[in-house]
Amino acid sequence: MNQIEKSPPWKLAVYAAIRNPSGHLLLLRRHPSKANFPGYWELPGGKPVRKESFDDTALVEVFEETGLDVRLTGVAGAVEGSVPGVRVALLIMEGDSNTSQITLSDEHDDFRWLPLDEAASLKLRPGFDLFLAEYAARNSSTPSKTKTADNHLI
Amino acid sequence: MNQIEKSPPWKLAVYAAIRNPSGHLLLLRRHPSKANFPGYWELPGGKPVRKESFDDTALVEVFEETGLDVRLTGVAGAVEGSVPGVRVALLIMEGDSNTSQITLSDEHDDFRWLPLDEAASLKLRPGFDLFLAEYAARNSSTPSKTKTADNHLI
Repeated sequence: MNQIEKSPPWKLAVYAAIRNPSGHLLLLRRHPSKANFPGYWELPGGKPVRKESFDDTALVEVFEETGLDVRLTGVAGAVEGSVPGVRVALLIMEGDSNTSQITLSDEHDDFRWLPLDEAASLKLRPGFDLFLAEYAARNSSTPSKTKTADNHLI
Repeated sequence: MNQIEKSPPWKLAVYAAIRNPSGHLLLLRRHPSKANFPGYWELPGGKPVRKESFDDTALVEVFEETGLDVRLTGVAGAVEGSVPGVRVALLIMEGDSNTSQITLSDEHDDFRWLPLDEAASLKLRPGFDLFLAEYAARNSSTPSKTKTADNHLI
């Protein structure tokens, strides 16, 4: 039996699919000054810093990038992201917020709340395109999925 | 603006969808002595211990539960798992192995390599049932998806 052979390293990044009471999804446009994927749309989130738990990462990144206090209500899915030189697993949590007033950071220059099918047709950062195509298809007949998760929480 | 309101805690667990060259998926049956879900089928994997990275967790848990040296070749998806009293995000990575000889630990009492549609019809631990239904549907027309990921690696 061989020793465990080290695979190429992976990084984890955590994002949030935040839907408002109308079922619209929040997307952010990457600032034109970004080195990677300027002008592409993405979900709020990012990589863990310090010794954060993955759920804290989602809450902190969402707050920093949008000003929203979210609750994580479920697991939306995971896809591989594209970042030069690194393999990244994008874990996407579902979240909701009791407000929809957005305060952007300097990471992004625009935001939209969109129905899932419209969100899926934006120019999306690689990885999020695959995720949103699947997520929109899976949730098209159940626009209030987040509410079900809410009931589970309360 | 409120402070970030702490959501109920989440845990991360990492599993591996390991397919052999025929495209068959490896499933393990939980030992009848298990307190939770005895006799249910699942993928190899588990929760990070110590300060493991999530990809090391997958490699170590797979090795401990199957004896296989796997490479992580992609991201298969994520679903919410059901564990009493905890909300768990199950992150499922794709993997392959150059051998198919399995050495079970005392966690499981049986294993099978199955086509995805047959795997999806087993009595699966909650969370894996949802994952495998989606994964089988998504991969039914591309049984050699793992090979594409291999090419990306080499």
